[in-house]
Amino acid sequence: MPQHRQGKQTIIFQNAPSIISSAAVVGPKEGRGPHGNGFDLVLDDPLFQQESYEQAEHTIFQEACTRCIEKTGMQKEAVQAMLGGDLLNQIMAASLSARELSIPFLGLYGACSTMAESLLLGSILVDGGYASPVICAAGSHFCTAERQYRFPLEYGNQRTPAAQWTVTGAGACLLAENTKGIAHITSATIGRVVDLGIRDPNNMGAAMAPAAADTLIAHFKDTNTAPKDYDKIITGDLGLVGSGILKELMDKNHLSLFEQKYMDCGLCIFDPADDVHAGGSGCGCSASLLSAYILPQLSSGKWKKVLFMATGALLSTTTSQQGETIPGVAHAVILEGG
Amino acid sequence: MPQHRQGKQTIIFQNAPSIISSAAVVGPKEGRGPHGNGFDLVLDDPLFQQESYEQAEHTIFQEACTRCIEKTGMQKEAVQAMLGGDLLNQIMAASLSARELSIPFLGLYGACSTMAESLLLGSILVDGGYASPVICAAGSHFCTAERQYRFPLEYGNQRTPAAQWTVTGAGACLLAENTKGIAHITSATIGRVVDLGIRDPNNMGAAMAPAAADTLIAHFKDTNTAPKDYDKIITGDLGLVGSGILKELMDKNHLSLFEQKYMDCGLCIFDPADDVHAGGSGCGCSASLLSAYILPQLSSGKWKKVLFMATGALLSTTTSQQGETIPGVAHAVILEGG
Repeated sequence: MPQHRQGKQTIIFQNAPSIISSAAVVGPKEGRGPHGNGFDLVLDDPLFQQESYEQAEHTIFQEACTRCIEKTGMQKEAVQAMLGGDLLNQIMAASLSARELSIPFLGLYGACSTMAESLLLGSILVDGGYASPVICAAGSHFCTAERQYRFPLEYGNQRTPAAQWTVTGAGACLLAENTKGIAHITSATIGRVVDLGIRDPNNMGAAMAPAAADTLIAHFKDTNTAPKDYDKIITGDLGLVGSGILKELMDKNHLSLFEQKYMDCGLCIFDPADDVHAGGSGCGCSASLLSAYILPQLSSGKWKKVLFMATGALLSTTTSQQGETIPGVAHAVILEGG
Repeated sequence: MPQHRQGKQTIIFQNAPSIISSAAVVGPKEGRGPHGNGFDLVLDDPLFQQESYEQAEHTIFQEACTRCIEKTGMQKEAVQAMLGGDLLNQIMAASLSARELSIPFLGLYGACSTMAESLLLGSILVDGGYASPVICAAGSHFCTAERQYRFPLEYGNQRTPAAQWTVTGAGACLLAENTKGIAHITSATIGRVVDLGIRDPNNMGAAMAPAAADTLIAHFKDTNTAPKDYDKIITGDLGLVGSGILKELMDKNHLSLFEQKYMDCGLCIFDPADDVHAGGSGCGCSASLLSAYILPQLSSGKWKKVLFMATGALLSTTTSQQGETIPGVAHAVILEGG
């Protein structure tokens, strides 16, 4: 039997699956951000001509998947599996998209870590010859997340300084056997669920940072690498508070050069003039920026090797109301130039 | 690169991962059922000494995983990945269990198809040498499902005849490289999301049956097999209404012998005297019965080859309230005697 393990949590992809296509669809606020030109479609209206924001979220998810497949000239019937999820209860945006696309579907839930989780599992499917091509996707919507997790928009409630702004958007990647592609996925680290006792659902960066540190340290140890070996180390949506904590944790672990290599999608998706407090969040944040900004840097050769790690806060309104603390999880995939 | 595909949706496991251990923990009503003796722990009280039913659901999930690992004499630190989910919003029972167990965690959501989804993905991880052993688990709780999806228990509302009773329970399986085990997983079929337009959230059997038929037909076609080649063909929780529809759909497809081989976990988990209307449901239904009844039949040699297919209805209270129809999904794994 082949062995692909290295260390405690890391998987090495001997066949280095390729990302052969990607696409991202986002809302108007994301479109105004510094990477606005990289998205495939920027909506004028977050309702996307639907009757509810939930329907819009599903339509955005589906549109990202459809565009990702269409770019290759492939028919959707050729795609052997779809892996993905979102933040709606029962991941309905992904499930309804899978219904419309009719691609065999494996639903995932990793909160905002979902894009990395789907790339990790999708790479295993492709690397081992279990399915190819496979589509990996994740998405979120500001308006549905606010009403599901916090308050209906109509309340106009005031947000705390540590609060993050859920990205309205979705991103999708099509993976296939090693070929000339945008980038290759060469290894991945499965994260553990880590909880240092944060209880404030308006400070998810703090809840996720310890999991991010745990996965990063595991990855460096498993692969005998350090920040110097990567052009960029990218987290999903730790935002201002979580990023600060992560830098401190890395510093404590004597991981030099970390700060110079580090970037957080949540801190660079919005225009600072839009004042989103601690930054962007949501599955769609890292998923859409992966397609709009990270993959183009790899395909152009500007970056050679990137650690992409999406981070998730594992909470529900029920667990918060019942006084439960908020654990986090983070999965990492290593992307190398095509 | 190895090739493990057969037909459009099916994966062949050349290394046939083993289920080396399983465990199930259930509530009192399940314990009174015909397979009550097969469960590892039957609770006297569905609250399981916790402060809320949600905490009880998490504790039941965790207990099933812990017992499953302990039976092998292994330490939980030796388990390389955990794959699973439940019906709570944001799969909190599985997520909190993963926090306590500290095993690298990949969260899944396939509604009541989750146990088969976790076995399918877990088998890929083991078969391809990506992780071993891995633990696959799913669970549900009647009291949390009622208040999340329907009405608080205190309402004492009347249930419709097509309604099913969510199983309070969880099941877990530990998979490892091919060795002497309880059973082997030799192939799996990834289901598509199928929707024939059912809108009644109290008739989930009808919503899931078309997906069950779709996956079964795909599996038989992909593997060039028919019902005669299996000792049992087992669905998760189609219940009385869904099972009837599935039999009709199989009959239309000229799949002879189907009815003689067919069994639904939802129809045999409860004592008929308990009158649960159309039968049991929930992720925990097929997950717990797999451990308590199906695997023992395989390890004793009474059955040689079983098709185990858990079925899920992909709905949320929001999609139902917004008038969306209810799609279903079904994943199948083939279990063969140890």
